[in-house]
Amino acid sequence: MVSVEKNPSLFLSGPGNAWVGESPYPSITEEHDVIIRIAYVGVCGSDISFWTKGGISAKVDASRPLIMGHEASGTIHEIGSAVSSLNVGDKVAIEPGVPCRRCLPCKAGQYNLCPKMVFAASPPFSHGTLAKYFKIAEDFCYKLPSFVSLEEGVLVEPLAVAMHVCRLADIRLGQDVIIFGSGTIGLLCAAVSKALGAQQIISVDVNASRLEFARKFAATGTFQPDNDSSETIAGKIKEAHNLDGGADAVLEATGVEVCISTGIHVLKKGGTFIQAGLGNPGIQFPITTLSEKEITMKGCFRYSAGDYELALHLLESKRVSVKELISSFVDFEHTTDAWERTRKGDGIKNLIRGPQN
Amino acid sequence: MVSVEKNPSLFLSGPGNAWVGESPYPSITEEHDVIIRIAYVGVCGSDISFWTKGGISAKVDASRPLIMGHEASGTIHEIGSAVSSLNVGDKVAIEPGVPCRRCLPCKAGQYNLCPKMVFAASPPFSHGTLAKYFKIAEDFCYKLPSFVSLEEGVLVEPLAVAMHVCRLADIRLGQDVIIFGSGTIGLLCAAVSKALGAQQIISVDVNASRLEFARKFAATGTFQPDNDSSETIAGKIKEAHNLDGGADAVLEATGVEVCISTGIHVLKKGGTFIQAGLGNPGIQFPITTLSEKEITMKGCFRYSAGDYELALHLLESKRVSVKELISSFVDFEHTTDAWERTRKGDGIKNLIRGPQN
Amino acid sequence: MVSVEKNPSLFLSGPGNAWVGESPYPSITEEHDVIIRIAYVGVCGSDISFWTKGGISAKVDASRPLIMGHEASGTIHEIGSAVSSLNVGDKVAIEPGVPCRRCLPCKAGQYNLCPKMVFAASPPFSHGTLAKYFKIAEDFCYKLPSFVSLEEGVLVEPLAVAMHVCRLADIRLGQDVIIFGSGTIGLLCAAVSKALGAQQIISVDVNASRLEFARKFAATGTFQPDNDSSETIAGKIKEAHNLDGGADAVLEATGVEVCISTGIHVLKKGGTFIQAGLGNPGIQFPITTLSEKEITMKGCFRYSAGDYELALHLLESKRVSVKELISSFVDFEHTTDAWERTRKGDGIKNLIRGPQN
Amino acid sequence: MVSVEKNPSLFLSGPGNAWVGESPYPSITEEHDVIIRIAYVGVCGSDISFWTKGGISAKVDASRPLIMGHEASGTIHEIGSAVSSLNVGDKVAIEPGVPCRRCLPCKAGQYNLCPKMVFAASPPFSHGTLAKYFKIAEDFCYKLPSFVSLEEGVLVEPLAVAMHVCRLADIRLGQDVIIFGSGTIGLLCAAVSKALGAQQIISVDVNASRLEFARKFAATGTFQPDNDSSETIAGKIKEAHNLDGGADAVLEATGVEVCISTGIHVLKKGGTFIQAGLGNPGIQFPITTLSEKEITMKGCFRYSAGDYELALHLLESKRVSVKELISSFVDFEHTTDAWERTRKGDGIKNLIRGPQN
Repeated sequence: MVSVEKNPSLFLSGPGNAWVGESPYPSITEEHDVIIRIAYVGVCGSDISFWTKGGISAKVDASRPLIMGHEASGTIHEIGSAVSSLNVGDKVAIEPGVPCRRCLPCKAGQYNLCPKMVFAASPPFSHGTLAKYFKIAEDFCYKLPSFVSLEEGVLVEPLAVAMHVCRLADIRLGQDVIIFGSGTIGLLCAAVSKALGAQQIISVDVNASRLEFARKFAATGTFQPDNDSSETIAGKIKEAHNLDGGADAVLEATGVEVCISTGIHVLKKGGTFIQAGLGNPGIQFPITTLSEKEITMKGCFRYSAGDYELALHLLESKRVSVKELISSFVDFEHTTDAWERTRKGDGIKNLIRGPQN
Repeated sequence: MVSVEKNPSLFLSGPGNAWVGESPYPSITEEHDVIIRIAYVGVCGSDISFWTKGGISAKVDASRPLIMGHEASGTIHEIGSAVSSLNVGDKVAIEPGVPCRRCLPCKAGQYNLCPKMVFAASPPFSHGTLAKYFKIAEDFCYKLPSFVSLEEGVLVEPLAVAMHVCRLADIRLGQDVIIFGSGTIGLLCAAVSKALGAQQIISVDVNASRLEFARKFAATGTFQPDNDSSETIAGKIKEAHNLDGGADAVLEATGVEVCISTGIHVLKKGGTFIQAGLGNPGIQFPITTLSEKEITMKGCFRYSAGDYELALHLLESKRVSVKELISSFVDFEHTTDAWERTRKGDGIKNLIRGPQN
Repeated sequence: MVSVEKNPSLFLSGPGNAWVGESPYPSITEEHDVIIRIAYVGVCGSDISFWTKGGISAKVDASRPLIMGHEASGTIHEIGSAVSSLNVGDKVAIEPGVPCRRCLPCKAGQYNLCPKMVFAASPPFSHGTLAKYFKIAEDFCYKLPSFVSLEEGVLVEPLAVAMHVCRLADIRLGQDVIIFGSGTIGLLCAAVSKALGAQQIISVDVNASRLEFARKFAATGTFQPDNDSSETIAGKIKEAHNLDGGADAVLEATGVEVCISTGIHVLKKGGTFIQAGLGNPGIQFPITTLSEKEITMKGCFRYSAGDYELALHLLESKRVSVKELISSFVDFEHTTDAWERTRKGDGIKNLIRGPQN
Repeated sequence: MVSVEKNPSLFLSGPGNAWVGESPYPSITEEHDVIIRIAYVGVCGSDISFWTKGGISAKVDASRPLIMGHEASGTIHEIGSAVSSLNVGDKVAIEPGVPCRRCLPCKAGQYNLCPKMVFAASPPFSHGTLAKYFKIAEDFCYKLPSFVSLEEGVLVEPLAVAMHVCRLADIRLGQDVIIFGSGTIGLLCAAVSKALGAQQIISVDVNASRLEFARKFAATGTFQPDNDSSETIAGKIKEAHNLDGGADAVLEATGVEVCISTGIHVLKKGGTFIQAGLGNPGIQFPITTLSEKEITMKGCFRYSAGDYELALHLLESKRVSVKELISSFVDFEHTTDAWERTRKGDGIKNLIRGPQN
């Protein structure tokens, strides 16, 4: 019935090589699937790695162009026969990865670690959301509250990332949290930490205007480091913010060596460090300090059960607002302009409109 | 009454500078204190750092010679007026650090992180167990089962270290565990992992004879790495031991960069890494792999509530035997011989007899 | 192809009303499904509630006869097109309930709480395993180790129940555990507690011969209560087994009021109580004691992620043996004889052979 | 020096038998002790059990009159030689129980379960805070924020109780919580749940004016039950508050049978129930529902490490305000008037002024 529709899509076949093409309309084959008319797609740091380097660990195969995009919102366009929680016309945020549901990690509450995960815009075969239509299982779509716009709905994805970070860190009432990086994830980590009852929320960044934004958005304090050693910076942060014993938690959203090292030094004994940012694969690391302070350090990968639900709850209860983070809009045809803008550090969250025709 | 007794003690005032001197008999001032006649003192890797470098992070101040020793067993010699759990003549293992009992870490179950901890042989002021008499609070002495000798009692300290490592790792039934290093701590980590129900327990070491010992002692398998990259070694370990997805836990007891890196690469997604060994303060570290596999990595510092109790239980229930680890004995006057032996890697656990006169 | 096969099945339509009838061969409709030729089905206490009362909370509707049976083993007879972990001819233990895989409990690691669970022999519509052929998703079949027979394979189901009980209780090295009831579940709780490193494992039952069996099977001690009050029985158990402060954990496998009450009284402060047995829906309960000792009490429902895997591991590693529990065999046509035997308390685990023709 | 001071004290020797007498000035014997000049003492439900029945489980021995009182604030009057965190004149809230600090529960983070706990106003020997001077260890005194009055400081004790309840329940962002009872503890549980990010906080009480207070104070909704069965009440609460699957947590602050039973029925599968109220020692209890929903139920006893710190943080960060709960004041000489008022259910928290001369 609807299968004659066209599906304009944004393909990438390698560094710097992107174009609008056509892909088949994603007809429903599983009774729990839905097809979404994409409204907006956000640009994430990982998109820039694809645009400039062809991928992160896994790269796009030039012979198999891949549809990009994984932060997205849209409107339900078609539903499978067993779909009961959504109707055509519903506005939704999309969780862009569906696990196998059958392996032990899937059953044991860590589906983000599923080895058969199908995640949007992942080489070699898994296409993304930068298209007119996108198909996914109904339980990975989340109806937006009536007062949340489709533009804001795009931000549910990074908000779920921040929620996952903060749940791994187990941020609790009265804790002092230090957040490295004031990009989208760092800012949302600050907002989620606040919602979870943290006391001091100190954003650290080299960019003064980002820190100013962080303070208005959610941070209770900020710190702009000089060219000091990580131990010196850690000492200055502690002094500036009366953190005698050190911070309870560090949320690292840069992936930069000196930030990671500073984070370890600024923690109190028994503190928790979450590595959320991705940078160079190898770094110099203060391992003895980790041992002597008996620090817990956790890697952090996407989101898992409950993260989207809680992200939506934050929006619905108005504990967190995301619209301040939206910096610009481009039309689908100018997707690479939004990537370039993000690459240069212009704006916080740059959005791409879904194809109009 | 007993205060006229002499107290021969082994002092260190800097690298290579150790001698037998005299210290005051430690008269009881707190009603819960006991005085122990030291029977044996074990040599630990940290002693060698004192002997060769004057300390680890904190160094001995030359103007304040420090009594060495922290792994020890002995016999109760005198008891305070409120002591109810011990009698003169009881044979005990000693937990050689007493926390303040009043700070929040002490009350919240992490007394090993107490900032006021008084730990044996710690610069600048806290004297150790290499003396005829040693004073400590009664609740840090643990009566030995009747069939456990004072020689074996010395090994309760490293067994409590291994117990702390394995509890931080939460080693459980059916897990596959990889242990880097087959010195005392690595070997005891293997034995404790076995007692906790681990399935495969793979010891990794560069020394073939140590691996042979490990296999007889507790390991279910071993691996002797070549000069490969950490990723290659990890791949070979997985292949050799059918660990398709990787290991559940890594217990790192060397502090060596390539071992730490290999440990991260050999873990499964969601696995746990415990840093027990102390080596160079800074190392090159595969941070992106930690993130992408969502690994939990924990520093590990001494032992805390329940570790000694469980270590004793392992001996009492005969789930772990430690006497195989005892390699040599020297008299108190020849303490530095035992240090030298350990420095050269001779033997596993070298013991020093307490002063006889 | 195979769909012309007959499928003899054991139906129940109400208390005392059971017969062998014919049901359709369960043709494969999902690509991950498998069809099992049933080898053996075990009789469980819940079957007796169906046989005598027509059900537990939910009862069989007389107009919709239900195929009974949920503890079963068998041989893979046919596989769906996407099945990769099993082949025709494989011998398997069956986990007889498949959750929806899509709700939050399913994704968050508690699929046993899935509101859409399809569990064998559950009114009104979910048929059981007492048939020649039974269809289920491949990931709810577990290949038996080569040395484990199909007879023993039936016992994996109650072993997974016991594993779930012990994991909820978090039984650990050195703990003292008291188990009320020495039927199949109580006995297997004792065996699993032993495998998890418990120190004392005290079985409590009114039947002396069951206690004798328990002691040979896994318990380290037993207690046969008189007609005393629960507080008096608790005191006697503590005295008999040197449990000054009380037990670390109680695993209650009877559902009987006096056992539950005794269990609360016999626990130490901060201890853990698991309610595994089902008896009268309401009981008299010592709530103040629960509060003053700050006891954690958990209900326990079937099994969830990892329980079957660990149960199989216990058999494969020979930490637990189950064949001692098998008491009798009857042919499929005499199913009600096995139910009657169980109702009278004859034997521990009575097995029914699957239909031969 | 100060030991010639008089110490007027409120003694009880049995039901209805209370008077003002004189007790010795509590001279400092431990270097970490402080002596507090009592400002205010609150009346708690347990005081009424002493006043009317001579105690709870343990009763006052008529031959050994006991000084009553355990909720108190005051001013530091004298300090031991090692006290470093407090000065004479500091205004403090008092945590009125000091554990032994040496047993395993004390070291392992559960000092509220210490068998040697010395708690104010506990028979037979441990005197309470209803006196001019009260001695306690410095680390069980908490300096009040400058803007918190001594009147409000009395409420830190019940606020710490509520904090302990909510931490045992692990109340988290977005959860729906039902609280039975709107006395001091129930109201503070509502306020703490709110501070921890709960979504719906439903107070249940038979008294309409208390529910009105609860709504103004912290609850998001209320329910006043009729004389229905517990299952019917649970159904009505769920219907009235759109709790389809049931509540995430129940905090029971009445100890009344029908409330406890309703709480079990109103929980969702996998939910958590905390028993905070103390009523009749035995009740009729829906055990099968606990099992089938796999509910976790925890007893709750006083407070432990971190509870007072977090209670103070709630006041300091102005997340919770307590002064609304203060209903009346009486002079020390009229203590029994305050008890009578509380016994009759007049007011929420009635305060007694410390002795003036």
